[in-house]
Amino acid sequence: MSLQRIVRVLLTLSLIMFVPASAFAKGPMPSWNEGPAKKAILEFVAEVTNEKGGQYVEPAERIATFDNDGTLWVESPMYTQALFAFDRVKALAPQHPEWKTTQPFKGVLEGDMKAVGASGMKGLMEIVMATHSGMTAAEFEQDASDWLATTKQPRFKRPYTELIYQPQLELLDFLRANDFKTFIVSGGGIAFMRPISEKLYGIPPEQVVGSSVVAEFQVKDGKPVLVRQPKINFINDKAGKPVGIYQHIGRRPILAFGNADADIQMVEYTMAGDGRRLGLFVHHTDAEREYAYDRKSHVGALDKALDRAAAEGWVIVDMKKDWNQIFLKK
Amino acid sequence: MSLQRIVRVLLTLSLIMFVPASAFAKGPMPSWNEGPAKKAILEFVAEVTNEKGGQYVEPAERIATFDNDGTLWVESPMYTQALFAFDRVKALAPQHPEWKTTQPFKGVLEGDMKAVGASGMKGLMEIVMATHSGMTAAEFEQDASDWLATTKQPRFKRPYTELIYQPQLELLDFLRANDFKTFIVSGGGIAFMRPISEKLYGIPPEQVVGSSVVAEFQVKDGKPVLVRQPKINFINDKAGKPVGIYQHIGRRPILAFGNADADIQMVEYTMAGDGRRLGLFVHHTDAEREYAYDRKSHVGALDKALDRAAAEGWVIVDMKKDWNQIFLKK
Repeated sequence: MSLQRIVRVLLTLSLIMFVPASAFAKGPMPSWNEGPAKKAILEFVAEVTNEKGGQYVEPAERIATFDNDGTLWVESPMYTQALFAFDRVKALAPQHPEWKTTQPFKGVLEGDMKAVGASGMKGLMEIVMATHSGMTAAEFEQDASDWLATTKQPRFKRPYTELIYQPQLELLDFLRANDFKTFIVSGGGIAFMRPISEKLYGIPPEQVVGSSVVAEFQVKDGKPVLVRQPKINFINDKAGKPVGIYQHIGRRPILAFGNADADIQMVEYTMAGDGRRLGLFVHHTDAEREYAYDRKSHVGALDKALDRAAAEGWVIVDMKKDWNQIFLKK
Repeated sequence: MSLQRIVRVLLTLSLIMFVPASAFAKGPMPSWNEGPAKKAILEFVAEVTNEKGGQYVEPAERIATFDNDGTLWVESPMYTQALFAFDRVKALAPQHPEWKTTQPFKGVLEGDMKAVGASGMKGLMEIVMATHSGMTAAEFEQDASDWLATTKQPRFKRPYTELIYQPQLELLDFLRANDFKTFIVSGGGIAFMRPISEKLYGIPPEQVVGSSVVAEFQVKDGKPVLVRQPKINFINDKAGKPVGIYQHIGRRPILAFGNADADIQMVEYTMAGDGRRLGLFVHHTDAEREYAYDRKSHVGALDKALDRAAAEGWVIVDMKKDWNQIFLKK
């Protein structure tokens, strides 16, 4: 067979298999531009998977943890789960006439985000408790799934489930192809993320670590159910992230990827282990294709991490420069 | 080739490959005698893995949960972790002169188990708090690993890590060979089991669910560490087991295996899901090779589950009749 013919057959095969030829041309993570961030990732993975090198890590210990909001999907102008909670307040309002006159619910119902913001963390917790508890685990999963299936992000007019970052999907795939086990470690609610984590990111529910409310086992009409209680079980944020990792995973990650100061402790904990480690932060620098924000943002503020990155050896991923594609390729 | 010759060649081949010929003769789970328990397991696995049958379950949903004490390893005459805690009390006694006169510590130091028992759950919790907290996660892991490596069970004169049940190891292997994901769901301490779960059972730390103390992230001498606090985080027992499964795994198991009434809720929760399910209990019936106990035992009491098993369709595994080998084959 001539070389020309072989090439033609291969191209035909790749078309038949619906694999774009570019996938072969570009190597792993084609949505990442060549640059220091991609280089750091490729070098890291090469080193920890090289059995003959000094930095080899056994597959079982290749734990990679990813924040969700702002790291795997869009978090601006407001965390997706907060928007879900606000919509639930509106849906539940007829059963709560008192909300018309009580903050922060009044603010949510009137679209007065300033009033909601003024209620602070305490107010936000009240909203979460009112909308995330009192139902069974299965009912909440249905609520969250329905909302995500039907709600579009206002600026991009796409469902939130499509506003996930293509370069990160490629990174997750690349890590798993190299025998990493990938986890979400997010301040968001564990029960809000789990119904979609497998489909969106290839991360199964049991590899999602997040904040949670207390659940109670009850037998209702002879059927055992789990009922979500209006009480915080765990806040998986900031210094809570290494704790969540300890309680849930029980191994220290060798790679941690966040986008905000709230991820610093997770990255510190990851980097403090023996041997080769990698800590990364997404820097939202692309006002045109996504959003540009950092030090003074009301979501995902990235300030101290930017200052400390160089000295600590943390990799800052510049969304504008490092990613040639932002959202999920359709 | 004559049949005789074929047999001879096969036997020779099996010797060359260091595979005992019995492995071929007996099929999966050779330490299980033919009988209703083994039959129930084999039929269940055949049905949920048969893509063309009506009971097919996707691999991702093939979650199997196992209690540990009395289900995967020996728990009589006393839970291994309690013995570890008692030994830690003795080791730490010089730093606590007050223990000489305070129960339940006095009882532990004097070997007066009646006094320890009289202190009840409150006393046991005091012992756990005194011996399982105040150190870093890494220090505790070392303590537990060292103790397990050096302590032998009094009757069988073997380390506890060898007093694991051979038939259950074969079952775990068989389930994983059929794309099940196997979890430990135990009342025992998550941090006590994790250092050994992979080596003993092939269950990685992130697939261990158990009781826990609160942990706190601290930076000590510039090094980030997790410090175990003298405060219960979660008791993963009885009605806590389905809660632990919900918070940790986020999927309902399709197979649950326990050995005590404390496992009833886990089995109930498992069986209440849609489609084909299997719930099992080890019944300790073999005083000669292990121990015989059930309804009135101070460890792993099995009473209500025995009464309800037939009506509920739970499988009672009779250790004496169903297992031809009890402990790990060396």
